[in-house]
Amino acid sequence: MTQSAPASPPPAPARPVDLRGRSLLSLDDLSDAEVDHLLATARALQEPISSGPLRGVSVALVFLNPSLRTRVAAEVAMADLGGHAAVLSPGNDAWKWEFRRGAVMDGDAVEHVRDAIGTLSTMVRGLGLRCFAGMRSWKEDAAEPVLRAVAEAARCPVYNLESAQDHPLQSLADLLALRDALGADLRGKPLALTWAPHPKPLPMAVPHAVLRMASRAGMAVRVCCPEGFEPDGAFLGSVRRAAEERGGSVSVHHDQAEGLSGAAAVYAKSWGAPSFYGRWEEERTPRAAAAGWTVTRERMAAAAPRARFLHCLPVRRNVVAADDVVEGPGSLVLNQARNRLLVQKAVFLETLRP
Amino acid sequence: MTQSAPASPPPAPARPVDLRGRSLLSLDDLSDAEVDHLLATARALQEPISSGPLRGVSVALVFLNPSLRTRVAAEVAMADLGGHAAVLSPGNDAWKWEFRRGAVMDGDAVEHVRDAIGTLSTMVRGLGLRCFAGMRSWKEDAAEPVLRAVAEAARCPVYNLESAQDHPLQSLADLLALRDALGADLRGKPLALTWAPHPKPLPMAVPHAVLRMASRAGMAVRVCCPEGFEPDGAFLGSVRRAAEERGGSVSVHHDQAEGLSGAAAVYAKSWGAPSFYGRWEEERTPRAAAAGWTVTRERMAAAAPRARFLHCLPVRRNVVAADDVVEGPGSLVLNQARNRLLVQKAVFLETLRP
Amino acid sequence: MTQSAPASPPPAPARPVDLRGRSLLSLDDLSDAEVDHLLATARALQEPISSGPLRGVSVALVFLNPSLRTRVAAEVAMADLGGHAAVLSPGNDAWKWEFRRGAVMDGDAVEHVRDAIGTLSTMVRGLGLRCFAGMRSWKEDAAEPVLRAVAEAARCPVYNLESAQDHPLQSLADLLALRDALGADLRGKPLALTWAPHPKPLPMAVPHAVLRMASRAGMAVRVCCPEGFEPDGAFLGSVRRAAEERGGSVSVHHDQAEGLSGAAAVYAKSWGAPSFYGRWEEERTPRAAAAGWTVTRERMAAAAPRARFLHCLPVRRNVVAADDVVEGPGSLVLNQARNRLLVQKAVFLETLRP
Repeated sequence: MTQSAPASPPPAPARPVDLRGRSLLSLDDLSDAEVDHLLATARALQEPISSGPLRGVSVALVFLNPSLRTRVAAEVAMADLGGHAAVLSPGNDAWKWEFRRGAVMDGDAVEHVRDAIGTLSTMVRGLGLRCFAGMRSWKEDAAEPVLRAVAEAARCPVYNLESAQDHPLQSLADLLALRDALGADLRGKPLALTWAPHPKPLPMAVPHAVLRMASRAGMAVRVCCPEGFEPDGAFLGSVRRAAEERGGSVSVHHDQAEGLSGAAAVYAKSWGAPSFYGRWEEERTPRAAAAGWTVTRERMAAAAPRARFLHCLPVRRNVVAADDVVEGPGSLVLNQARNRLLVQKAVFLETLRP
Repeated sequence: MTQSAPASPPPAPARPVDLRGRSLLSLDDLSDAEVDHLLATARALQEPISSGPLRGVSVALVFLNPSLRTRVAAEVAMADLGGHAAVLSPGNDAWKWEFRRGAVMDGDAVEHVRDAIGTLSTMVRGLGLRCFAGMRSWKEDAAEPVLRAVAEAARCPVYNLESAQDHPLQSLADLLALRDALGADLRGKPLALTWAPHPKPLPMAVPHAVLRMASRAGMAVRVCCPEGFEPDGAFLGSVRRAAEERGGSVSVHHDQAEGLSGAAAVYAKSWGAPSFYGRWEEERTPRAAAAGWTVTRERMAAAAPRARFLHCLPVRRNVVAADDVVEGPGSLVLNQARNRLLVQKAVFLETLRP
Repeated sequence: MTQSAPASPPPAPARPVDLRGRSLLSLDDLSDAEVDHLLATARALQEPISSGPLRGVSVALVFLNPSLRTRVAAEVAMADLGGHAAVLSPGNDAWKWEFRRGAVMDGDAVEHVRDAIGTLSTMVRGLGLRCFAGMRSWKEDAAEPVLRAVAEAARCPVYNLESAQDHPLQSLADLLALRDALGADLRGKPLALTWAPHPKPLPMAVPHAVLRMASRAGMAVRVCCPEGFEPDGAFLGSVRRAAEERGGSVSVHHDQAEGLSGAAAVYAKSWGAPSFYGRWEEERTPRAAAAGWTVTRERMAAAAPRARFLHCLPVRRNVVAADDVVEGPGSLVLNQARNRLLVQKAVFLETLRP
């Protein structure tokens, strides 16, 4: 994503990036050159393309959970490129799906994901999927069973529109917003990912996506969270290695002010404590004790007065972050949102163009 | 909307109407010349435009309540013009919204309207909104808090697809139907807006829209309703002034036959009694007592044998009006419906064209 | 649909097929030449058409029940042809409809089908409808009251997207799959339609559609089902006559192995026992007794080792048919699914082209 740092392997010989037919399940699926290419394409797509490069191309978007940004971004992206996006909500307007291999389907589920996705693969050229975490078992969520089942059954590119533990299109949009605000070379720049209060435990999809993105960019990543809310150790190890290879770092801070101190960017996001995963009743007490972690203007002013503020939205105002932070002068939240459209257009165009 | 009547102010010097970038929250937002221009455009748009004048343009349509005509009209309008409409139902397929400024969002609502609309404003070029009345407080509904919150947060034109107390696209469609049936100059022509029975109290959006439209056209407007069901006095005063400026009038009749007598057009619509607003239990008795107000063929034949019949649809047949009135030879209900498409195309084209 | 058999009437003089403005409520609406023409068009439409023959044409798709294949096929079909499909779910995102003529609408239904369909007819050029069986009265379901009410109210072509007892677009897709697999002339070839277990009684739409299709193709049709689950006698008589006119036959078998023996194609589908129609509590015991009718690889291997396997999907795996049958080498289920798109494109193009 940036010129190779001293600790990086030697640069591969330049060759044109070709993403046709590729899926995007995780940022890990993309090389640095491919990320750079997608973001350059996203920027170029701020201008409309009148030639309709995806004319006659349709995709299906499967939402197992609600969506605003993602759905509108994907629908408008296809329309802008001359194509079409068909939106489905299995269990609501379409048949409820079974995901387990070999299941005897005598219960609620009417259709197996292999048949549903097999069918869609005969009708459309690409498949988007939103499938949130089950929040019962860390091991199960980390294995991404729904995303994997869809990807295995599909005979066309599959796009992760937020899965149990990843959100690569958000990663790309965030990276574009950070580069626009802080410069193309983000190596060593301090980004604080801070936990924030919320009425209930949320999945790790966005926190993981932020950590994947910032470590790939070689930033000095500071994870700020109350004790017990630390990200999974194995995951943290993998992103730390990625950061260090690029001249960056990953540290964990249980004092929010310390973690935010001097940050160039503060990314706020709530999540459920991995150490209490699936035992959410027991997490109530530590969660309630951390009610003071709301990101306020005062805290930003004291610790990181020049920092940009990021959040993936939707954000619970005055719980996760105060009104005057979300709408403050350093807020990038609407830049991130706009970038969701641009990045979605770039991914559709580059993977589906003839 | 018509040539100026003796009581009107002198005509403004003619200049080309340009509605690009404008919102349509109420008929009051439009001058007479702008109304005339939109209706002329609507008529012209009966013929398809093959050039796709809105190619590459997307709008988002936000429905907080159900819709048939409005949604299909808006979707087809954009498709006919070469653009795209993305349809959202927050609380159903998208996140539930908070509308209050400064709210501490620790309840059901997941996203603030300012962030949701701010986001959509970065992705689409126009925003339609349907937001029915809360039916608890007259003062609150009259202030249109949801429509106002959306309009304030939006950075693009906003279209009112029926709000708490207005429905301007219905007004334009109705006016086009009346002009086609009764002639371009409607001044002084008698239009009876009659209350009708219904199982439950309905909002004032359409009655207000009819009164705004007919008074702007200078018609002789007769409001027919049981005692206690009179429209709000302040609103009635404002439309009476508008009617009188254009050579029309507004009167109230508690005898349906008297009010309908000699009418050129009968517009049937049920509404909740403003005098019982929010105290709907108490309204049950007067509502039940008025069960005889159904618009029947006999009543039309006796009082207004040549009158055209209008209703905005959906209509509860044989409760609001009899089958043979709704489908009778004088019925304009399908003309009104078709005009919804034509008017929607005109509004999108004129506000969104480059 | 095939060259005329000795028992058939003499062939009509060839004239070009013109389906513009036609509805498709049942396969019975189409002559053999029209069926042949639609399937030839479907095959040709495997290649995209860049000219956008339905540019500026919109249809509305009304779903009173869930859908995956049908909705995506219809949406993508219109998009591929340059047009647009607006999708509605009355009672969910649109107003709930009344279907009875003369009803006093003081209950749940907010809009009469005549007004809803009358309205849509002014806005779109074609109307698709999905309306499953009520499953209370055979007589009522056989009369197709919802489909008939919509067809009577519409002023444009109406497409049956699965009604109480028919599914003509499935018929056409299945016929195309059978011809591709077994050859254009299907006369006399043995097709077994076998009942299969299911947690609850299902409508006769697909079994009837299969019987209509296979008899029209002159196949040797074997209906395999437990005693009491035989199709309605009058319907069976009508399809038997159609089959015999074309050199085919229709027989009923209560021994699944006997019925499947030597079949060239096995079509599995569950249905509610017509002899218990509307008295579904009483059907539980015979249904439970027939749990052994699941189509397994062993049964296929023993009775019909070379047979192709068909199912309309969604299929409850390991209840209706085993995983290794649905995904086995002889399975045509994804061919059938793909053909749904091709056939839908052909029907839209041929009925809506200028």
